[in-house]
Amino acid sequence: MRSIDKFNNFTEKGRKQIDQICLTAAKVFGQNGYLSATLSDVALAAGTTKGGIFHYFSTKEELLFLIVHRYMNNSLKGLEKKLSAVKSPREKLYTFISHHIHNYVEHQNESRLALLERSNLPRESLEVIKEGERQYETILRSIVDGVVKEKGENLDSVRLISFSLLGMCTFPYMWFDPEGQSTPHQLIETIFKIFCGNLKIDQS
Amino acid sequence: MRSIDKFNNFTEKGRKQIDQICLTAAKVFGQNGYLSATLSDVALAAGTTKGGIFHYFSTKEELLFLIVHRYMNNSLKGLEKKLSAVKSPREKLYTFISHHIHNYVEHQNESRLALLERSNLPRESLEVIKEGERQYETILRSIVDGVVKEKGENLDSVRLISFSLLGMCTFPYMWFDPEGQSTPHQLIETIFKIFCGNLKIDQS
Repeated sequence: MRSIDKFNNFTEKGRKQIDQICLTAAKVFGQNGYLSATLSDVALAAGTTKGGIFHYFSTKEELLFLIVHRYMNNSLKGLEKKLSAVKSPREKLYTFISHHIHNYVEHQNESRLALLERSNLPRESLEVIKEGERQYETILRSIVDGVVKEKGENLDSVRLISFSLLGMCTFPYMWFDPEGQSTPHQLIETIFKIFCGNLKIDQS
Repeated sequence: MRSIDKFNNFTEKGRKQIDQICLTAAKVFGQNGYLSATLSDVALAAGTTKGGIFHYFSTKEELLFLIVHRYMNNSLKGLEKKLSAVKSPREKLYTFISHHIHNYVEHQNESRLALLERSNLPRESLEVIKEGERQYETILRSIVDGVVKEKGENLDSVRLISFSLLGMCTFPYMWFDPEGQSTPHQLIETIFKIFCGNLKIDQS
């Protein structure tokens, strides 16, 4: 955690540069793959030098950690804020799906890094990220628990249902182009419709 | 494609060794990450030498390609065979979900490689894999088209619904432990139940 706190000690100008480096690095890591990308690639894309990066970050891992940590934290805070404004179980469900998809649409590089590259973090940093994920999943499970009236006889069923919903919301990182044929709104509506049982299914 | 055909030209003993190397390599790539793992790691785990690997494979990419290509091909053939034995739209849907989950349970390392590491393949090899994926997705879309009676007004809705289902079936690669609290059967039943609209949802 110490390594996160230190970023608050820079001047406003420094913090803006850190924001800019994170944004650029997420793009470079996404394009080249985290392991293949170098801090020189990031420096070049950010219009600075490798020394300019080392002024703020000791290692490439630290840079990845800050990107994923901020992404996770902002997503959690944003979700909690939106959920506090709605009351009914169905509205909470819709809010979750909408938040998750919009968070991806607005932070595509960071979303994919958090999903696909977090395993490259050192163990201690990974634990911090996993703790954030657990908080996110706890919120999701409480929403599912509130909206699904009959969970079946399996004691673990809320977890299975919650992760199935999370799968519908997260798999788009691999295929959904927000500028493509369908809009994010149409994707959100589709997932909500499936989960609420509003697809008309052939019963034969 | 030439690089795939060449593996059929080895003797039976050679082909068995290739099978063994693929199985071990999938495990090593899964544990260490494909980019971090070396052919020496694979040789050590397979009880052979680096020369023993080079006897069959020219590069690490070629080894990854054979693993993912076989996995994709066997999955496609297996799915087609199972589908040919069932008739109703709902049975076809269940067959797809069950096949996808069991394929993961039986080939966990290969499933994760195909999802997470295929982007490390050279462009030409990746195109071959993507063609297999397109065939798989075409089958899925025809099943969804057959079972969902009302698709909404969005022209792209069958694709959105199909990929949402695929998300529920594929996201388990990231979290589902087949030896854990819930069985693969319970996971399959949950996904089928959600898709068929059989969860009881709070309507308030």
